[in-house]
Amino acid sequence: MRAKGIAPGPPPGLCEPGMDQLPTEFPHQSVTFPEPLPLDCGLALPGITIAYRTYGVLNAEKSNAILVCHALTGDQYVAEPNPETGRPGWWERVVGPGAAVDTGRYFVICANVLGGCMGSTGPRSPHPRRPGALWGVEFPVITIHDMVRAQKRLVEHLGISRLFAVIGGSMGGMQALSWAVQFPEMLFAAVPIAAAAYHSAQNIAFHEIGRQAIAADPHFRGGHYWAQGVRPERGLAVARMTAHITYVSEEALTRKFGRKLQNAEGLSALGEQFAVESYLQYQGSSFVQRFDANSYLTITRAMDLFDLAGEHEGDLAAAFRGARARFLLVSFSSDWLFPTAQSRAIARALNHAAANVSFVEVQSDKGHDAFLLDEPDFHATLHGFLTGCAEQARLA
Amino acid sequence: MRAKGIAPGPPPGLCEPGMDQLPTEFPHQSVTFPEPLPLDCGLALPGITIAYRTYGVLNAEKSNAILVCHALTGDQYVAEPNPETGRPGWWERVVGPGAAVDTGRYFVICANVLGGCMGSTGPRSPHPRRPGALWGVEFPVITIHDMVRAQKRLVEHLGISRLFAVIGGSMGGMQALSWAVQFPEMLFAAVPIAAAAYHSAQNIAFHEIGRQAIAADPHFRGGHYWAQGVRPERGLAVARMTAHITYVSEEALTRKFGRKLQNAEGLSALGEQFAVESYLQYQGSSFVQRFDANSYLTITRAMDLFDLAGEHEGDLAAAFRGARARFLLVSFSSDWLFPTAQSRAIARALNHAAANVSFVEVQSDKGHDAFLLDEPDFHATLHGFLTGCAEQARLA
Repeated sequence: MRAKGIAPGPPPGLCEPGMDQLPTEFPHQSVTFPEPLPLDCGLALPGITIAYRTYGVLNAEKSNAILVCHALTGDQYVAEPNPETGRPGWWERVVGPGAAVDTGRYFVICANVLGGCMGSTGPRSPHPRRPGALWGVEFPVITIHDMVRAQKRLVEHLGISRLFAVIGGSMGGMQALSWAVQFPEMLFAAVPIAAAAYHSAQNIAFHEIGRQAIAADPHFRGGHYWAQGVRPERGLAVARMTAHITYVSEEALTRKFGRKLQNAEGLSALGEQFAVESYLQYQGSSFVQRFDANSYLTITRAMDLFDLAGEHEGDLAAAFRGARARFLLVSFSSDWLFPTAQSRAIARALNHAAANVSFVEVQSDKGHDAFLLDEPDFHATLHGFLTGCAEQARLA
Repeated sequence: MRAKGIAPGPPPGLCEPGMDQLPTEFPHQSVTFPEPLPLDCGLALPGITIAYRTYGVLNAEKSNAILVCHALTGDQYVAEPNPETGRPGWWERVVGPGAAVDTGRYFVICANVLGGCMGSTGPRSPHPRRPGALWGVEFPVITIHDMVRAQKRLVEHLGISRLFAVIGGSMGGMQALSWAVQFPEMLFAAVPIAAAAYHSAQNIAFHEIGRQAIAADPHFRGGHYWAQGVRPERGLAVARMTAHITYVSEEALTRKFGRKLQNAEGLSALGEQFAVESYLQYQGSSFVQRFDANSYLTITRAMDLFDLAGEHEGDLAAAFRGARARFLLVSFSSDWLFPTAQSRAIARALNHAAANVSFVEVQSDKGHDAFLLDEPDFHATLHGFLTGCAEQARLA
């Protein structure tokens, strides 16, 4: 189910061949907004491009649109193969015909986040004032709120004044919360999954490991690796491996690998001795083929800076005071990166702010990644919530 | 309280000045055993040197000796400043006059582990067959059992046929378990603290991050960095930072740092934005001054390979069948690296093997590192256990 009805023009020349040895010049579907985008850091981007995909059909009332927000390393290819990597859409279990987010009923939009590397404006985009150069590490610090403001432009561009729902897991859940707080009149429902209202010290610490590993790679070259024809692949792989451990539960790792030896012949201190090691190394090396290190720095920092309560002198309920959406919060029992307690704190603050909120902790031993995996209870919960909301919203 | 009574000869020339640009040639107190040491990997080391320290006085019956085993990055300077780093002894809270391990009563021995870098034979020692070269990455794969066999030589050298106790936290606890299993007649009591009978898939995964970060450092040079006058400092720092996160609880990180900003002036994706980041970076950079990367590879691998049940077809009780020691197991409630469940599994297996075992879970929010920190309940527990054992053993 590709985009129908609304078909933007051909994508702008974000990544022109030959310019700075970019690895891919795939023409992602996108739209460019020439007006400057003011950022939380005080700077402004002089116009932005947002790459996106849509699925299903927007109804005549334009009332059936669902925005799906992706996580740190996700992209806009939520329900179809990513044309660059050939991998299946990252949420085909959840978004598609007859799925919980039914593309036969809803018009689903998914955009690459600001700061990303799949066609939206980010560190790999051309520097606006230096012909032939890329932003690189000079790309400004952005926040989750900035990402959401960029998405708002896309939503308005598509002629939609009110989204039926904003749904996202992990960093996508942070975006759903930001939508509900920044633009309360623009969404009927919000579904933050495996999310939190702030990034904890431990989360920041794990991100910092990844950033240090990238910066330590000799191919990082102070962030100017593209210009020098190299990429900090080993550092980025270490960053991904570290993050990956935090995405899975100890139980899941044990069930999958336990202490299985990969290489029973001979022992060595380095090398793939245990199966879990070669799995992690695979995770790391496949990731560097599809992700840009500077985007990784930019987006992890945006997550670290997210702190809804901090914006209201520590009072999370105050952050939600103007929220109008119906909320479904979902957490997973074995998620130790965004544990249930953090979703519970959001639910409590929403209750305090007299918001309409459901909260479900799904029993799962798959850890944080559970929101991407086969979790029928989660899918049924989401389906039920959306169906109920559709009735309330009198969606046909 | 320095070593008395037994004074070994001057330390052998392990690290001769000028040889391969070693950073330190500090003459650690040590003893060399010229006989080959057979290793679990099938190879043998052609003689070993063990660096150690003792505290207190060995009594006439030689019945009051306690061996303290150190953790991954520890050393033999348990109760006095490390002469290389100038830092206080790593367990001065627990070992000393009047402390739980009272050096006024017991004769305390602590040795740098085989594979270490504080004077015991390890990757930084001279290669036995290549004059002027070091072992480096060619140092054989060793196990916790190998470390313990090396310690046994030291204990016998000191004229001790039976230790009153073997005590250790984390990897030191693995050594205490190995002592109880390998040499059951040679110890009266064993105290594994914050330990496990095997290294879990998650533990292995975290170690693998560190090893990959070291190997990715351009200064690693395939492990031959000493010969080339460089050191993989950034990789080793990332390894240490990763490990450090696993040593502390989320609560402790939050209490200590929360989301405190280090650098409120201006935002950046890289750099020390949050206090927790600069703390981690300090942990990383101070560590590389005192530790050898190849030792880190060797010792983390030894921990990964530890699996007492695996040696007995998955039956941990079978591993303990011959054990004679009185056991005290200690875990800490917020330790997520070696969680209480793992100590409980050991206690269950020991009960099954009809061993004499006490098990205490200390309530603490300090995480794995709690065994090194100010935890009066833990110290009182240890003191009480040793006092009771001393009575049973009829120690004067």
